[in-house]
Parts: sequence; structure tokens; C-alpha cells
Amino acid sequence: MTSVQSKLSIGIDLGGTSLRVGVFDSEMKELDSCSLSTRVMDGPDAVVADMAECVRSLLNNFATSERLTGIGIGSPGPLNLELGTLGILPNFPGWDGYPLRDCLSRATGIPVYLESDANAAAVAEWKLGAGRRAQVDSLAMITLGTGVGSGLILDGCIWHGMVGMGGEVGHASIDRDGPPCPCGSRGCLELYTSAKGLLRLARAQSSNSESSQKLKELVEHKEGFTPLDVAELANSGDISAMCCFSKLGDYLGFGIAGLISTLDLPLIIIGGGLAGAWNLFSPSMFEAIRKYSIVYRLGEPTQREVIEANKTFIRPAELGSPAGLLGAALLPSLSMELAQEAMPIA
Amino acid sequence: MTSVQSKLSIGIDLGGTSLRVGVFDSEMKELDSCSLSTRVMDGPDAVVADMAECVRSLLNNFATSERLTGIGIGSPGPLNLELGTLGILPNFPGWDGYPLRDCLSRATGIPVYLESDANAAAVAEWKLGAGRRAQVDSLAMITLGTGVGSGLILDGCIWHGMVGMGGEVGHASIDRDGPPCPCGSRGCLELYTSAKGLLRLARAQSSNSESSQKLKELVEHKEGFTPLDVAELANSGDISAMCCFSKLGDYLGFGIAGLISTLDLPLIIIGGGLAGAWNLFSPSMFEAIRKYSIVYRLGEPTQREVIEANKTFIRPAELGSPAGLLGAALLPSLSMELAQEAMPIA
Repeated sequence: MTSVQSKLSIGIDLGGTSLRVGVFDSEMKELDSCSLSTRVMDGPDAVVADMAECVRSLLNNFATSERLTGIGIGSPGPLNLELGTLGILPNFPGWDGYPLRDCLSRATGIPVYLESDANAAAVAEWKLGAGRRAQVDSLAMITLGTGVGSGLILDGCIWHGMVGMGGEVGHASIDRDGPPCPCGSRGCLELYTSAKGLLRLARAQSSNSESSQKLKELVEHKEGFTPLDVAELANSGDISAMCCFSKLGDYLGFGIAGLISTLDLPLIIIGGGLAGAWNLFSPSMFEAIRKYSIVYRLGEPTQREVIEANKTFIRPAELGSPAGLLGAALLPSLSMELAQEAMPIA
Repeated sequence: MTSVQSKLSIGIDLGGTSLRVGVFDSEMKELDSCSLSTRVMDGPDAVVADMAECVRSLLNNFATSERLTGIGIGSPGPLNLELGTLGILPNFPGWDGYPLRDCLSRATGIPVYLESDANAAAVAEWKLGAGRRAQVDSLAMITLGTGVGSGLILDGCIWHGMVGMGGEVGHASIDRDGPPCPCGSRGCLELYTSAKGLLRLARAQSSNSESSQKLKELVEHKEGFTPLDVAELANSGDISAMCCFSKLGDYLGFGIAGLISTLDLPLIIIGGGLAGAWNLFSPSMFEAIRKYSIVYRLGEPTQREVIEANKTFIRPAELGSPAGLLGAALLPSLSMELAQEAMPIA
């Protein structure tokens, strides 16, 4: 048994494929963790039992159960945070409305803090990743994955909005006449800047008569080609593949420009698998942000000094996929800090 | 002399044409006010002297100067709220960077609370107008005037953003390929939904071969035709004039949809002169919001109950042009409430 002076916290990252549980000290050093596959089809009670078993076995190694701040869990959204229940999760059939927070708390006897995975990742990048040095208390994180997720931190709090749907930047439309989105709208940012969006851009680019032969071959002959394939082609200097990322950056920049004009944020963090192609899409992204947001332009140091030279920084995420687990483990202490700040004056 | 039991506050609405100063009791009843023209060309010191003189003469009628909460002033933006100074104001040549807050405070000996006019109006509608019955603590107010202004209230605080430019919704672009905006971007919401925007829509509509003769005549023969002229024509049943407002509503709804997807707000208030044409533009506005925001659609009560039936309400402003003055007068007490909430625990 290890004796630990500082407070422990537990993070759980609930994914559609795998489930990760980690124990962290108050410096957010990972002391121990385990990972197993998510038994989605066995139903939520079975998965909660798995989580509780992981927590028990991890805590067995520590003599400090009374110094535990709690369990934070990052779950796919939408969630009802007031009730601590799941919404309608396309990849978790039969889980609709499940009271995840209370069930896990009952199964472990430990307070549970529930948050969407996108918000948990934003918290992690804010406290430990790309936001750490910036020391800001407001930011947006946009995650370019299979879809486009986002999390907003405003004045030191996760912004949930009215029903926990705040920060659905991926489903803000950027083109009134754009293609239909599975969400029911048209032209959503996600259609242009997700992994699927990039593949769509690559297909469109390859059908262009001026497309390179290599991109055509990739799209036409490699079944299940991935964004990584397109990125490798682009990094080898293929102009047509580079053009796909340049278009993605242009759309992303247009979306970010709207976010900056609306909220005048000091920091935007770009995460997710596609953020690895930063060098390929960021030049056109910055160009579009500059083109479409006077608020961004006014923040640039080259402008007249009457406006303070505060600039919105746009940076790639630093933590990668562990962000979800780290962010989850940060939730108990974050929640306690905020509760203290909000405590009424006696 | 009148003896007043409750605390007084003073509001100042600084406009490019006129300057209004009012004294209010703690129920926000206007006890007295005065209005004079803004001597913009005489410079800011002269106008601050006018303000101070108004304040003095208004307060002379009350025996309660020690019970004054302060002076709130709503000014055209952008402002540097930290320094209490003006930014670059196109309609106030030579006023750039003027320390309005401190100069007025020195001239009157009373604490001064500076805010943009758009935010002051949002505060007034929140506390006394369209937001009063809703009892929400977050909202956006969009003001359709010569330009399009906006103010954001998030969790009970005015949202300023990093340099006080938060809430520049009028300069979020809604069309990548739209016409150039004087701000330097393209396709800004303001180009489609301001008074000027409506006139542009009317001109475009009248040059359409299917336009009504009446709209053509208005556009071609009435010099300086106004949105009111177009509204009167529309209200008389002219299809082409109605179409102008329907288009405005469609663009406005697209912009609001993005705001709802990003922030999931419970209330959006539409103010400014054009809000008087609510019956003409709101049907297409609601249609566009529904079409372009899954967050709005999920909030509609007809959806599955797993998501709480919280809906974003979009309502016309209720206070009209006095909103700016009322909101300014609310600033001292709002600022004190927030300071108390933020007070550290002893």
C-alpha cells in the first residue's frame, strides 16, 4: 500500500469502444489506471458495475480513501446535467435517460461529477494543456474528430447553456445553402471540418479535372481511405491533397471568426485527430479568421494602440487523447472551487 | 425639495445627436430628466461639463445626495472598460481614447459606471423589459438600428469578452461570399438586417422583374425612402415589400440560429427601430432558426421528453428607445450586486 499525502481524484472516460479509469494525485499525476472495453450492448447497469469494480481495485492500492475528492466522468452528450442523466446517445442504444451520475455514486459510495466528454477535454486543455501557460479564464476548444465537438469555458466556468447544449459549435451552420447534415440542419461546420468532412472535400477535389493523379488514385482505389492518407499525400507535396486541408482550414477559420466576433475569447484550442494536420490547414484558417472577424483584426498588435493589444490566440491542443480522462479527473476539484466562490456571504 | 427614502441612481445616455440624463429611484421610476444636444464638435471635455451641469441641476431637487448609488453611462462603443476610456468612435471625431469615466467622476464627485449603449439596453430589457417576466440570467439582445448592435448577458453578468468586443453579433459573417462590409469583413449580419440592409434588400427586390409597381416607385422616386416606408407598403399587403422583410427575417434567423447553437440561451430579444416590423419579419425568422439550429429544435416541447422542454424564446424588445437610459441607470446597482457576490469568504 502506498501512502499519499495529497488528495486523490478519479477520472473516468466513457467512450463507445473503451472505458478508461484513472487515479490522479492533486498535481494531476496519474498514479494508476485501467482500461477495458465498454460493454455497450450489456446495458448501462453492467457498465456502471465495471466502472465501480475498476474504482475499487484501483483504490485498494491506496490508504487514503477518506482523502478522495470524488469521481469525475466524461460521457458522450447530450446530458441532462441537472438530473445527472444521459440524453439520446446514438452510439449507446437503450441507454436513453439513464441516471449515470446517481447510479455510479450508489455503486461506489463516492460523489460523482458528470460532464460531457467535449467539456472534460476542454477543462484538461485549459488547466494542463494549451491553456496552461496562457492563464486565461475563458476559451473555446473545438475537437475535429469523426464529428466536431466543442467545449466553452467562460469566466472560469464550463458554459452549459440552458439545457446543456451550449457550445454546439460543430452544428452552427456556416452555409445557408450547404449540404444537409444528419442533425437536420444544413451547412453545419462539422460537414466541412470533421474527418468525414475532409474525406468529402477529398472526393470533391479528386473529381476536379485538375486533380492530381495520386489523389484520384487514393480516392478511387483505396477502399476506406482515411484523413491520414490524405495528410501523408499532402505532406509529400501533392498540391491537390494540400488543397483539401487548405479548404478545411478556410471553413474552420470562418466558423472560428464567428465565435470570436460573438464572444471575443482570448484562446481557441483545436484538438482531435485532425489537429495533427495543423501545418496543413492552419495557414488558410488564420487567413479566414483575419478576413471574417473585425474583433480578431482589432486584437492584432499591428492595429492602433487605443484598443489594447490583446489578441485571440488559436493553438493546437497539447494533451491528445488523454485529455478526456484528465479533464474528468479535474471535475471534482473544479466543482469544489466554484462552489466555494459562489458561497453566500454570512 | 423632495425627500426621497430610497436610493437614487443617475443614468446618462450618450448619443451622437442627443444626450439624456435621468434620475431614478430604486424602483427605477424616473423622477426627473433632461435632454440636450451632444456638442460632439466642441470635444469631450465640453460634453462632460454639460453632463455634470445636468447632474447637478437634477440633484438640486433632492435632499438625498448621500444616498446616491452612482452614475451609469451608456456610450457608443468600442470602449476600454478597464481604463474607462473610449475606443475609436466613427461619429465622435477627436474623442479617441478619451477617459470618459474618470473625467465625469472628477467633474461630479460621484462614482461613474461606464458601459456600451448596446449592453446598457440589454441590461434594461433584462431587468425591466422583455426579460423581466422570463426571470432568466442569460440572454442576447440584438438591436436592429442603423447598424446591428448586440449585448450578451451570461449568468447574470454583462459579457465583455477579452477587450470589451464580446457580442459583436452584427459583425459575425453569415455569408462567406457576401458583399463587403465597411468593417472590412464580408457578409456581416448587419449588411442584411440593419435599416441600411433593409433598404438594400428593397432596392434589390425592386429591380426584380416581378417586383410590384409600388415598390419600384418607392425605391426609384422617393428620395431618402426609409424602412418605415417599406413597412407601410408591406402592411398594406404589397407582396414585394413583404418579401423584403421576409428576407430580412430569414437572414436574422440564420444569425440567431448560430447564436443559439453556440450558447444555448434561454432568451433572445430583438430591439431597435426595425423590431417594430416584428409581424413582417418574425415568421421567416422563426422558420430559419428552426431550420438551422438543432439546439433550438431540441428545445421545442414537441420533441422527446428526455431533453427537458426548455425552449429558447425570441421576443421583441419592450422598452423602446428609453432602454439605453434605463439600462445606464441600472449599472451602479448591478455592479454593486456583482461585487458583493464576488466578495471573498472571510
